[in-house]
Amino acid sequence: MYCVAVPGGETSGASVGEPEPRDALFLRACRGEPTERTPVWFMRQAGRALPEYRRLRANIAMLDSCRDPAMVTEITLQPVRRFRTDAAILFSDIVLPLVAIGMNIDIVAGVGPVVADPIRDRAALSRLRPVTGDDVPYVADAVRTLVGELGPIPLIGFSGAPFTLASYLVEGGPSRTYARTKQLMYTEPRLWHELLGRLADIAIGYLRVQVEAGVSAIQLFDSWAGVLDEVDYRRYVLPHSERVLGAFADAGVPRIHFGVNTGELLGAMAEAGADVVGVDWRVPLDEAARRIGPMRAVQGNLDPAAVFAPADVLADKVHDVCVRGGKAGGHVFNLGHGVLPETDPGVLAHIVDLVHAASPG
Amino acid sequence: MYCVAVPGGETSGASVGEPEPRDALFLRACRGEPTERTPVWFMRQAGRALPEYRRLRANIAMLDSCRDPAMVTEITLQPVRRFRTDAAILFSDIVLPLVAIGMNIDIVAGVGPVVADPIRDRAALSRLRPVTGDDVPYVADAVRTLVGELGPIPLIGFSGAPFTLASYLVEGGPSRTYARTKQLMYTEPRLWHELLGRLADIAIGYLRVQVEAGVSAIQLFDSWAGVLDEVDYRRYVLPHSERVLGAFADAGVPRIHFGVNTGELLGAMAEAGADVVGVDWRVPLDEAARRIGPMRAVQGNLDPAAVFAPADVLADKVHDVCVRGGKAGGHVFNLGHGVLPETDPGVLAHIVDLVHAASPG
Repeated sequence: MYCVAVPGGETSGASVGEPEPRDALFLRACRGEPTERTPVWFMRQAGRALPEYRRLRANIAMLDSCRDPAMVTEITLQPVRRFRTDAAILFSDIVLPLVAIGMNIDIVAGVGPVVADPIRDRAALSRLRPVTGDDVPYVADAVRTLVGELGPIPLIGFSGAPFTLASYLVEGGPSRTYARTKQLMYTEPRLWHELLGRLADIAIGYLRVQVEAGVSAIQLFDSWAGVLDEVDYRRYVLPHSERVLGAFADAGVPRIHFGVNTGELLGAMAEAGADVVGVDWRVPLDEAARRIGPMRAVQGNLDPAAVFAPADVLADKVHDVCVRGGKAGGHVFNLGHGVLPETDPGVLAHIVDLVHAASPG
Repeated sequence: MYCVAVPGGETSGASVGEPEPRDALFLRACRGEPTERTPVWFMRQAGRALPEYRRLRANIAMLDSCRDPAMVTEITLQPVRRFRTDAAILFSDIVLPLVAIGMNIDIVAGVGPVVADPIRDRAALSRLRPVTGDDVPYVADAVRTLVGELGPIPLIGFSGAPFTLASYLVEGGPSRTYARTKQLMYTEPRLWHELLGRLADIAIGYLRVQVEAGVSAIQLFDSWAGVLDEVDYRRYVLPHSERVLGAFADAGVPRIHFGVNTGELLGAMAEAGADVVGVDWRVPLDEAARRIGPMRAVQGNLDPAAVFAPADVLADKVHDVCVRGGKAGGHVFNLGHGVLPETDPGVLAHIVDLVHAASPG
């Protein structure tokens, strides 16, 4: 039973005896319903900042660990046990479904995903086919186990968004300029839209596996969409992300849409079909809410490097995020990007306490 | 004589017979005065996109080339000859003054500046002393020669801003997260402010050498300030950049203040003392002008990757930048960041023509 594993035995955000996460604090905030306090989780809460994670991953490659349901379950639960966050997020990587359909991608420590066979012409498109449950049986397995273990705590599933997946596939890995990606986008718009269409199908298929197995919410990571201006975003990216998010409009799961450096895209990313818009730390949440409109929730947005600040500075920053987030149509506390590997887990635990104590509800 | 070297023998933006750049198009736009057309130059216009540059630099290290006045002069003139831009920018690198006072920094191809002896404690601060003309005699030499060669075309001098210089010194090189920099900033604010104070002195000294040797404008590159939110920017960075820009308030040279991902900082970067605020491609220039206020000019902001777009798409984008820039209190056309090395120089020449033909004046 999950509750036994939680220090203090408390459940987080749902009444005792309620086995379903439907009424959990996190989901109510996503839906813009009143909450007695602000829910909190952290992007990359399961990861290198935790010593128990580093021990478990010591001799196991990233993608291998993502394909082992027992490992995925344990790693996903680690931060929930430690921090009592209001949501869990499935431990995985956005390139997993691409690997599952045969793309040769390795996740290199200190670099990121490295694609052995980049996609830069029409012939390469045929390598991208839709994803079904048969391609990723370990994902559905892990989700089902986790849903049982987590009880009332919601599990978030996720996928990379078409643009961000395309950027890895076209560049061959992480990039500082995204020059090849934009070059393909501008010079071969038909090929580009076919590529993003196929990646949208992959994202839909991959998310469907997770939703059918029981996740309570989904997050679409368009981490690098912020390299585009709004005109290009709307022309080359939005229709595809809209199709992904639209496929889950009636699935009963809140849809979170996140990217970095997306200050000028927040409105468009909301329009794409987000119930919750993830905001990096650059845009104050009240200003983000203004750009997004009053009917949607925001998620964020403490600077991930704020964990290095002294306690008083950190407390001020957390308080400021909660106050500004309180002006939006729902607020899920998070960092503005993933937990940095150098983060002291004790500080994350402290942030959870600060959010739970400080938030106006 | 410079004019002989210009294709077609035309001067750019100043009346024939006028040897001083004071009335040049570029400087008038910087001052918010009416212009008959929009001036244009490109960040990194002197660089790897030009075959004549690659030939010249073939076996010469970056920093060596920056310390050779004849080489600096030739490389600075190359793009002006080729594109007939409305301004030249001194060929150099922002780490040059740091190297000149003894910091062990190498510019590694494909990486950027790598600092052998990062600055992370108080003891290391003593390595940073002010810069005078005696430290960089080759810079004043090159500027004096260039001013003579360029005639009516303004020469822009530049320096790295305290934060961006600090980020290299603290991280030891380029960074994706700036975790060490922010950690120092948060945990040792006194040391931080002393570090940025010393870097402000270096920037002032280095810019003074250039202004005294005759540059017509200065640009303060705070390229990475956009990793900070506005609260942190105002607390930890703005006072130091303000001191640098303030030192040239009465120097008779427009002061351009530039950074990437600075959409939320544009107002603060203007307040720091900029006459012209550089804007990356993410924020439309009319919106940037709104954030900056009506009394200052903007510089930018075509996506550097737009050079890969087909002619019609590119023309639309250039036109859009000119129209939006026309709504600001002065507009200098530029890219939103530096010229990408993969850029076809013919496309840059075409952009100059488009700006000169399309701009409303």
